Amino acid sequence: MRNLLTLALALIGSSTLVASAQISNYAPVTDARLLNPEPGNWLSYRGNYSNWGYSPLTQITSANVSRLRPVWAFSTGETAGHEAPAIVNNGVMFITAPNNGLYALNAKTGQQLWQYKREIPEDLVTCCDIVNRGVALYGDMVLMGTLDAHVLAFNAKTGKIIWDRTIEDYKKRYTITSAPLVADGKIITGIHGGEYGVRGFLEALDPKTGKTIWKTYTTVNGSYPAGGAETGGASTWVTGSYDPGTKTVYWGTSNPSPWIDPRAKESDDRKWSSSVLAFDVKTGKIKTGFQYSPNDVWDFDGVNEQILIDTVVNGKTMKSIVSAHRNGYLYLLDRANGGLKYVDAHKFIRSTVYQSIDKNGRPVWNPQARPAVGKQASACPSLLGGKNWNPAAYSPLTKLVYIPSNESCMTIKGSQVKYAAGEAYIGAESDITTAPGLNHIGKLQAVDPVTGKQVWAQTFNSLLWGGVLTTGGNLVFTGSSDDRNFNAFDAKTGKKLWSFKTNSGVIGVPVSFQVEGKQYVGVYSGFGGVAGFFNSGVGAKTKDIPTGGVFWVFALD
Amino acid sequence: MRNLLTLALALIGSSTLVASAQISNYAPVTDARLLNPEPGNWLSYRGNYSNWGYSPLTQITSANVSRLRPVWAFSTGETAGHEAPAIVNNGVMFITAPNNGLYALNAKTGQQLWQYKREIPEDLVTCCDIVNRGVALYGDMVLMGTLDAHVLAFNAKTGKIIWDRTIEDYKKRYTITSAPLVADGKIITGIHGGEYGVRGFLEALDPKTGKTIWKTYTTVNGSYPAGGAETGGASTWVTGSYDPGTKTVYWGTSNPSPWIDPRAKESDDRKWSSSVLAFDVKTGKIKTGFQYSPNDVWDFDGVNEQILIDTVVNGKTMKSIVSAHRNGYLYLLDRANGGLKYVDAHKFIRSTVYQSIDKNGRPVWNPQARPAVGKQASACPSLLGGKNWNPAAYSPLTKLVYIPSNESCMTIKGSQVKYAAGEAYIGAESDITTAPGLNHIGKLQAVDPVTGKQVWAQTFNSLLWGGVLTTGGNLVFTGSSDDRNFNAFDAKTGKKLWSFKTNSGVIGVPVSFQVEGKQYVGVYSGFGGVAGFFNSGVGAKTKDIPTGGVFWVFALD
Repeated sequence: MRNLLTLALALIGSSTLVASAQISNYAPVTDARLLNPEPGNWLSYRGNYSNWGYSPLTQITSANVSRLRPVWAFSTGETAGHEAPAIVNNGVMFITAPNNGLYALNAKTGQQLWQYKREIPEDLVTCCDIVNRGVALYGDMVLMGTLDAHVLAFNAKTGKIIWDRTIEDYKKRYTITSAPLVADGKIITGIHGGEYGVRGFLEALDPKTGKTIWKTYTTVNGSYPAGGAETGGASTWVTGSYDPGTKTVYWGTSNPSPWIDPRAKESDDRKWSSSVLAFDVKTGKIKTGFQYSPNDVWDFDGVNEQILIDTVVNGKTMKSIVSAHRNGYLYLLDRANGGLKYVDAHKFIRSTVYQSIDKNGRPVWNPQARPAVGKQASACPSLLGGKNWNPAAYSPLTKLVYIPSNESCMTIKGSQVKYAAGEAYIGAESDITTAPGLNHIGKLQAVDPVTGKQVWAQTFNSLLWGGVLTTGGNLVFTGSSDDRNFNAFDAKTGKKLWSFKTNSGVIGVPVSFQVEGKQYVGVYSGFGGVAGFFNSGVGAKTKDIPTGGVFWVFALD
Repeated sequence: MRNLLTLALALIGSSTLVASAQISNYAPVTDARLLNPEPGNWLSYRGNYSNWGYSPLTQITSANVSRLRPVWAFSTGETAGHEAPAIVNNGVMFITAPNNGLYALNAKTGQQLWQYKREIPEDLVTCCDIVNRGVALYGDMVLMGTLDAHVLAFNAKTGKIIWDRTIEDYKKRYTITSAPLVADGKIITGIHGGEYGVRGFLEALDPKTGKTIWKTYTTVNGSYPAGGAETGGASTWVTGSYDPGTKTVYWGTSNPSPWIDPRAKESDDRKWSSSVLAFDVKTGKIKTGFQYSPNDVWDFDGVNEQILIDTVVNGKTMKSIVSAHRNGYLYLLDRANGGLKYVDAHKFIRSTVYQSIDKNGRPVWNPQARPAVGKQASACPSLLGGKNWNPAAYSPLTKLVYIPSNESCMTIKGSQVKYAAGEAYIGAESDITTAPGLNHIGKLQAVDPVTGKQVWAQTFNSLLWGGVLTTGGNLVFTGSSDDRNFNAFDAKTGKKLWSFKTNSGVIGVPVSFQVEGKQYVGVYSGFGGVAGFFNSGVGAKTKDIPTGGVFWVFALD
């Protein structure tokens, strides 16, 4: 279809992709600020290095949240999944859109300051929607990973590109969808592409030039079948955490490639797939790792956020990692001295894949739930996971983690597959269903990270695919899908206190910030991502959700 | 770009285009209801047959409108221009989207009831964006014109198609973008396509079958150069008015095809292009017409809405038509006995095209402003018009018309063109600029329709491309472009009382309605249409407006 009035008119000038306005007063983002972010700013993916998703702001509370109202909105013109948080620095907001749009906005008024729109190569192929999960800030720079596997550094004031670094070849199906992590003066990026047999790695860049400081592969020869590590997956597609005390970066890895590998022997754990790894931030060296799902066959990526908190276990304070894994277990790890030691794990949704987990955290498989080439198995949860990428949050006030979980099951069967560069390298077929006997799919639950005890839960008709925000006002925010709602709950009781019906299903990562003394809450509404792939089963309630991304900002009336 | 997780997954069922839910209690739309629509409903394009764009509802007033807040939103997933009003019948809302999406929604909650999405032929070509301006209701039916020149009748309760009538061949570039008019038990539709040398007509359909009751061409042999009437334009692309007292349909026509025709003699008015026509609703016979711009060369379509009101002229009440034309004049016509008699015209923006208008309403051209083949002329307004399609409104309380006008100028030059089926048939080249010396483009103005006196005006940075709503609460609503605002003004004083920054530029037609005793205001935000074609000149301030359509509903907090 064409529009042709232009035949007669000298209408169309060249499209300007960058710079509507300049920002005069921009506060550089220093290491010191990243270590201790001001309560009114949201300077990184989850607001702090510990991946809490917690805003200390206290103006909006469980007592007054019923007065929360939209104050502005902003369309991206994109219809894929909108999963990014806003990153806010002293009233300047940066949001990314699918297809690598990037917008600088006045956080208070919603006025657009500058914009960038990347031209994505036509031959680019990605497994799981064309999402982007936001930027990192450092100095006067805005840092964005791209679908074609670049990291771009923008001048935060003007939107002009300072450097453009090719991290890997998108033709090999490397992509970047997650926000970089700025730690110890380095820009650290993961990559995506496990469904195509890429080899996972984590890379640290020099912020001045974009050049490599270190690059560490996540697959280990000897733990894979011969030659398998080179195409072994273990990609790094969700932003990690940083412990400045031990100079350790904690970062999760995806499931292995292929999903089911008949060549793998009993002893082949295919490390470090489906794991969390501890990287020395100076050298990139892997200090240690913990593998959630050795030789995984269920697509149980281990990328889910590691939440760094202090817990009290047996009367002793422990520097811990809490992580809700796809397999449906909430893990508690001891991270003392930059380590990763298994402590405990508790089921948070229906999970049939393990008979037990031993004292070292190694699962004892349920053989009936474990597929192989030619062998179909039934398993809960499905590959969508008890929890997927969308981050849980922690509140230091309640000392609970708030998990956006989902109940689902699947049949899964292995199939022969041969590696070919650029081709899918999966070796499995799966059919996803709702969990038998349950009316709900989504479940937002407040869980004690030490005991695994569920303090409260709220169920949802359809998939929960958005992140969670906790605040100093005793609030928990998250979006839901089929009802298009953005919701607030009482952090202590779980009572639903407020919701607003937005334009689309809400799968964004909510944030809170303050401008000129006033607290705001912001979130994307724009259904899609992997949650948007389904028309039946888990998709029966989401297939008619309208698409189209809008960033929303709310404040008290 | 492809998404390939689906390789491994049995994910994708067939997409269901129709029916999420059924509507149990639906009130049929009778002729009696269309003649006297309930104040709480918005049953047709402009709310009544007189094209007032007026809601009698009085809950939201100039005293309390500052408390107006969004209550829900709905994305269409389309990024072209969103120009449709919502049509609301007892709490059931129908909205159309670009590319002929149609949604039935719960008007109070925003819940989707059913949806329809048309597959538009890939070889479809249209001149001026792929907009749709809403539906008509009749009985239990929803009626929509389509880009491929069909009229569809849907079951309002289920979204199922009852009949599908091909009005003309889209391969000849006939399209339909406007809402049908239901009058005297007939479904009356105009057509679009003047830029391709179509022959304009108006057609009345049998609501039971969709079959033709009458079809009347709008071009007259003898008033065109030999053979020119067959390809003479005068299309009918904005919904007309209806005077039930005289059983007369008033409907405007576009400029002629080609825009500039060197074959046209001095006496060739190319009737009935750039005119308003009075049709006998029973037979379709043209009773009479008034030609705003005889042998037009400026792209001054005469399609703009005819507002039917009673005026008092020289102490006598006159059944009148008021219409703000593209040429920058506000016309007052006497419509006694179903006629069309020129009374007066007043400039409402800068207009250089005429030296004068004679007592019969025939303009005396300014020869310097009149282009010809090979002769470039400068003219104000530009072809965008002092006012374009976006409807003005009338308030019976203030007896003023509220005109969403624009200041712009152009150079325009004729060029040789030969008719070829399906090809552009314009014969002119134009370059559009802002009006020299003015900082604003848009101007919302309250004008006395008899004296032409401007009672108040509000100026806007960029093009006003949305419709206007007046209400019983002394309010005037309209959207603006570059600031993404939806705005409310005091109808008497013009004072800006409220605005909300939506997702995109607002070019929709606002409406008001009531559900369960509560008043709402609704409007589309979704910049585009012809206003979205410009990157410089009049487009300098709109080129960075984000696109993506969202329907908004507001209510008092």
